[in-house]
Amino acid sequence: MKKKISLLGATGSIGLQTLEVIAAHPNQFELVALSAGRNIEKVREIAAFHNPPLISVMEKMDAETLQIEFPAIRFLYGAEGLEEVAANTGADVLLNSVIGSVGLKPTLAAIRQGITIAIANKETLVAAGDIVMAEAKRYGVSILPVDSEHSAIFQALNGEQTKSISRLILTASGGSFRDLTRDQLTNVTLEQALAHPNWSMGNKLTIDSATMFNKGLEVIEAHHLFNMPYDQIDCLLHKESIIHSMIEFEDTSVMAQLGSPDMRVPIQYALSYPDRIPMKDPQRLKLEDIGTLHFEKMDLTRFKALALAYEAGRIGGTMPTAMNAANEMAVSQFMAGHIPFVQIDEFVERAMEQHQPVLEPNLEAILETDMQTRKIVYSMIK
Amino acid sequence: MKKKISLLGATGSIGLQTLEVIAAHPNQFELVALSAGRNIEKVREIAAFHNPPLISVMEKMDAETLQIEFPAIRFLYGAEGLEEVAANTGADVLLNSVIGSVGLKPTLAAIRQGITIAIANKETLVAAGDIVMAEAKRYGVSILPVDSEHSAIFQALNGEQTKSISRLILTASGGSFRDLTRDQLTNVTLEQALAHPNWSMGNKLTIDSATMFNKGLEVIEAHHLFNMPYDQIDCLLHKESIIHSMIEFEDTSVMAQLGSPDMRVPIQYALSYPDRIPMKDPQRLKLEDIGTLHFEKMDLTRFKALALAYEAGRIGGTMPTAMNAANEMAVSQFMAGHIPFVQIDEFVERAMEQHQPVLEPNLEAILETDMQTRKIVYSMIK
Repeated sequence: MKKKISLLGATGSIGLQTLEVIAAHPNQFELVALSAGRNIEKVREIAAFHNPPLISVMEKMDAETLQIEFPAIRFLYGAEGLEEVAANTGADVLLNSVIGSVGLKPTLAAIRQGITIAIANKETLVAAGDIVMAEAKRYGVSILPVDSEHSAIFQALNGEQTKSISRLILTASGGSFRDLTRDQLTNVTLEQALAHPNWSMGNKLTIDSATMFNKGLEVIEAHHLFNMPYDQIDCLLHKESIIHSMIEFEDTSVMAQLGSPDMRVPIQYALSYPDRIPMKDPQRLKLEDIGTLHFEKMDLTRFKALALAYEAGRIGGTMPTAMNAANEMAVSQFMAGHIPFVQIDEFVERAMEQHQPVLEPNLEAILETDMQTRKIVYSMIK
Repeated sequence: MKKKISLLGATGSIGLQTLEVIAAHPNQFELVALSAGRNIEKVREIAAFHNPPLISVMEKMDAETLQIEFPAIRFLYGAEGLEEVAANTGADVLLNSVIGSVGLKPTLAAIRQGITIAIANKETLVAAGDIVMAEAKRYGVSILPVDSEHSAIFQALNGEQTKSISRLILTASGGSFRDLTRDQLTNVTLEQALAHPNWSMGNKLTIDSATMFNKGLEVIEAHHLFNMPYDQIDCLLHKESIIHSMIEFEDTSVMAQLGSPDMRVPIQYALSYPDRIPMKDPQRLKLEDIGTLHFEKMDLTRFKALALAYEAGRIGGTMPTAMNAANEMAVSQFMAGHIPFVQIDEFVERAMEQHQPVLEPNLEAILETDMQTRKIVYSMIK
């Protein structure tokens, strides 16, 4: 039996690599639906090559144009289209790789249909982790990580008991600016921020890696995925991104997952789980060629974003939602050239200071926090 | 329910650390019997502190002396005593940490009683791996590794499928002489050979680490324990002994077990398996303090012993038995000052050249090979 896969965010970096993995294993996987945004040229290429039964795009006009070009495919658009792709295609697995908290509603819709979630959309878990995990538990749905760090921990947890964990250790490459001091960050450009040393990822993620908000979001994501207190989640600077993350158990044994920086590996694992299947064009790890792996303590003064994320996570409620929304807005303003790099975490910090957290929020409180915080950050821009 | 533990080789390095682990967890483990050799002072200490119901020593006279000193303990001696400790004490787990192929018969006796084997005695698996594993299968008995490398692989296999393995990667510290060339080995002393850079182990094991026969024995041990062809077992030089070994799966994902060089961890895991329990006086791994891990290709010209072990393993039958017996004899002759260090692997090579392997040997053929090869090596000494 082929696994039926539905894909949110098909034209992004993770989305495209997911399509590669699916195409490489036609006997294992069947693509039943996908969503994309406004990159219509890319959608055309994907439609021509993968020919899925259903595609949803952002805009009505784009859907209508594409419908004429590809009459055999059903085209939808907007929020309704996104939910249709997420929850109403008979998929076994939804791989959610949209960027930002926009991924929240379709994730919840899929969970309520009993569809396994492969989650690359970390903002969804950061903004509403308690709600998402509670719904997943209620509907008996597995949430499988796609982030390389969480996939590493998930793999290291295989056959182990959660109660034996003493701590999770998330590794961090340090991002594009890891060798700069806080002062040196003042004049960095967008182009410099987008040059990640190890991983090929989308722009939002690459900026988040440079600010270290990415690691902060991952800490909160790990808290939800593995039901782990923040005191038991550590971060470790590891420039080479070869050890993707680790678990320390109470007997002091440390289990780790390693590999070349190749996002297809965690994507494929989330789709093939609990099995492993061969990798097409494998990039085998050769530690004898790499020679040396480096490790350093994380400096929470230098990487203020990480300290903010721990703070938001420990406060809980809507505070991580506010932090995430503030960061999404600040990153988009930096990418548009409206604010300098160093203002990203400053804006997030100010937004968190202004936010009055709701401690056990429902979905409405979360969506309200998300919207209000974006407005607050927008108003900060001179 | 406490697990009942029987221990062979109590006065050696692994034996003493096993006693530490048992004493640290009185609610989990109960020591029901132990064996020792001629180190009677140590046996006295152990008897006084651990007070097990049964102790077997090498010599009849020692057993009689100790029986008078410790009337509450039952004392036995010799091969019969060893088998009694191994197989007739109602133990749940036998931890076999004797040195050399002398561990073979008691291991088989315990398997036939359905006792789980925690094996630190690698020579037993090298000398007669096919027979031991076949008997274990027949009696439904688990063979749990105690060597740090095999324990690492065993832990990395948790929850995984053997068919998905692409290769095992055994790490090697390189031993006491890793930075010397083959020429520089000519004049090394016993004292230098016994100074292992990372691990605190028994003498035989430390010499085997210096020649690299230890890694060779481990390759053959891994072949048997994990039913893995030699082409899928690699060795990697890793000076720090922090990554204890790894498995590469067919999706290119590599699972590794890491930790401080602390033999109590694999010992305790073999005893507590499938559970993990807290470590007393834990030596937690702090990669941020270690800073750097190094990896290098193994040089099979420099480390001839490793090449010989692969050769013996691939030939199979009694060839690994002969290689092991030759090595045991050569090491004891080196420790007695009768031959120089560089003659150890030369003698083993010559013994292998002279050996006509029996391809599907029974136990008698194995014991005969073991004895004959020792004689051959002994005759080489001028």
